[in-house]
Amino acid sequence: MDYSIQLEKIEQAVGILQEKNIDAWLTFVRETEHNADPALPLVVPFNVTWHTAVLITRSGYQVAIAGRYEIVNFQRMGVFDETISYDQSIQPALVEVLDRLQPRQIAVNYSESDTAADGLSHGMYLTLQRYLAGKPYELISAETLLNPLRGRKTPGEVARIRAAVALTDDIIDRITRMLRPGLTERQIADAIHAEYKKEGVVPSWDHNYCPTVTCGPESPVGHVSPSDAYVAQAGQTVRIDQGVVLNEYISDIQRVWYLQPAGETSIPAPVQHAFDSVRAAILAAAEILKPGVQGWVIDDAARRTIVAAGYAEYQHAVGHHIGRTVHDGSTLLGPRWERYGKTPFGIVEAGNCYTLELGVVVPGYGLVSLEEDVLVTDHGVEWLGKPQTELIVVPV
Amino acid sequence: MDYSIQLEKIEQAVGILQEKNIDAWLTFVRETEHNADPALPLVVPFNVTWHTAVLITRSGYQVAIAGRYEIVNFQRMGVFDETISYDQSIQPALVEVLDRLQPRQIAVNYSESDTAADGLSHGMYLTLQRYLAGKPYELISAETLLNPLRGRKTPGEVARIRAAVALTDDIIDRITRMLRPGLTERQIADAIHAEYKKEGVVPSWDHNYCPTVTCGPESPVGHVSPSDAYVAQAGQTVRIDQGVVLNEYISDIQRVWYLQPAGETSIPAPVQHAFDSVRAAILAAAEILKPGVQGWVIDDAARRTIVAAGYAEYQHAVGHHIGRTVHDGSTLLGPRWERYGKTPFGIVEAGNCYTLELGVVVPGYGLVSLEEDVLVTDHGVEWLGKPQTELIVVPV
Repeated sequence: MDYSIQLEKIEQAVGILQEKNIDAWLTFVRETEHNADPALPLVVPFNVTWHTAVLITRSGYQVAIAGRYEIVNFQRMGVFDETISYDQSIQPALVEVLDRLQPRQIAVNYSESDTAADGLSHGMYLTLQRYLAGKPYELISAETLLNPLRGRKTPGEVARIRAAVALTDDIIDRITRMLRPGLTERQIADAIHAEYKKEGVVPSWDHNYCPTVTCGPESPVGHVSPSDAYVAQAGQTVRIDQGVVLNEYISDIQRVWYLQPAGETSIPAPVQHAFDSVRAAILAAAEILKPGVQGWVIDDAARRTIVAAGYAEYQHAVGHHIGRTVHDGSTLLGPRWERYGKTPFGIVEAGNCYTLELGVVVPGYGLVSLEEDVLVTDHGVEWLGKPQTELIVVPV
Repeated sequence: MDYSIQLEKIEQAVGILQEKNIDAWLTFVRETEHNADPALPLVVPFNVTWHTAVLITRSGYQVAIAGRYEIVNFQRMGVFDETISYDQSIQPALVEVLDRLQPRQIAVNYSESDTAADGLSHGMYLTLQRYLAGKPYELISAETLLNPLRGRKTPGEVARIRAAVALTDDIIDRITRMLRPGLTERQIADAIHAEYKKEGVVPSWDHNYCPTVTCGPESPVGHVSPSDAYVAQAGQTVRIDQGVVLNEYISDIQRVWYLQPAGETSIPAPVQHAFDSVRAAILAAAEILKPGVQGWVIDDAARRTIVAAGYAEYQHAVGHHIGRTVHDGSTLLGPRWERYGKTPFGIVEAGNCYTLELGVVVPGYGLVSLEEDVLVTDHGVEWLGKPQTELIVVPV
């Protein structure tokens, strides 16, 4: 089994515990096949069945407590200072370790704002409270730890995201060669799924709407399954939102095609204006996407640009982290709306990988929407793939 | 998209709400790609990104509240009395619906005991408490609802499990033809993964240790990744624990082979005795597995049988539900140990699908372990596949 990413992240976690002045971080999970904690794969590359505790302290001491039948997987990682197995209850071992290490505060994985830091179930929280009743330890949210741990991609993580983006760029080229009038959204999605299968990858989000295919102006916009009700047509756009999981890391890219009728010599002005405006809004965001900026500021730059061009505001965030998942938690490049909690107020950091995405519907023509994947460096943005700089025209 | 199972389960949920005298059941989720709630797929066959509420009342009234870009998926299901979309916050719509329907108690998905009923994250629980502050609604655990909802398989669910088991039985036959001395555990696992790929299915649990392959007496027992350190050898056993996901439902089966050296005319007595004892313990459990019995009673019958045959107790439960996942929550056929919470005290019901599994290590020979998948009917147990009634002997 390949532990390279997890070893990078464990080392990074110790550094962040010191930086944020947190005594200890406890990941407390069970049955992660169906009760997954998104923080677990950062440090442990396999699932567990029984109650399992992974404790990392600011001094760098690392303990795994797991059921008898699963402790070997932790031992094989070769990184834990202690691995402790149990049969009937994890409580005695967990309490013994904490009483020995004496952390004042223990960060656990819950957060109202950051979904990627909210893997502790309410039932497991109650269990932990019961186990530690009468003990002096304070349970705090791990969001201040998990936000940077997830957001600051290590070199190994960036390399994997880059590979997923490169494969997606290649699949986009294949779509261009395949598009023609008469194909339904479902047929296009099926063809893309066939490409994924050929490459041995799976969609980066729900198979039912990755890819999301939007043909023409009537097709509903959003996370909607492709249907046979809408068909690629000459003189209209096709917009595809997709990504793949490659080596556990993902891509998330939107591209837009225009099916140009025979005899038409230039792209209709409303379509070209929409494309130029969407692209300008993405560049406005990219321009100021640097370490130290708050997330909502980036969104605001794109939002003002598209509104100034005469379009409605998009009803989402202009960018989200990508990484192990397509919405990788942490700071959002989004508006200060209630549903986003505190995430738009976070600070962009070097090593963050973000999408930049927005679109507009052009009446009579269809959706014009772009999404690029970028890496934030000390000096600004690096495009992780080939950005779409002009409409992809398919003559029909 | 195929909603057939979900429509069966929603109808079943209304019946259970009435039976258990619960006013309303609320599934409250977001970003289910990485914060999955195991209860959601029972009623909704896709993932959601933004805060989403699925409310089902005892009168059968069904409401879905979801973000603007995802509401269409709920509308397409054609089963909800109301579908409500929002942009900035789910709170106003959620509160308006509850104030109109006035449930006294609202069951939400948390449970210390039943992992399959524990999908509500602690952060989402805090959000719900904040949204409903000052309101008269009492949040209670949905475990009394989810336990039977998950456990009582509908005809559609049983058919899918049966198909997954049949495919696994077929793959077991292919393994028998392929086994030979010198193959490492990893090579055997790779060959099985190749069969899965050929069939277009994925392992029912973690790819890293599904299949779990155990060659000879030295290989560690448990949920351990196959390695190249242990090799199939003449005069030893090979035990494989595996299952596949087919149409979203799973199988979970263990089989044991004996590689018989040339010239050996009968199976060594310790191996045969182990097999007969394990099989007898499984039959002892199957014999009394009927509706109305407590889970721990079934485990106890198997446990007493294997101990009476001179072996150590197994350090796990003799059976767990199977269904959408390999450990499908609800009543466990397990001992009354702390780590299992209340689940061994639950009552077996008709429609339950269980594993029956245990094993012993035979010094010098290897692990002898079996796992069968069964359906509980009004009259007792129906085997879902072909049970292993004798050692599979591979002459070498």
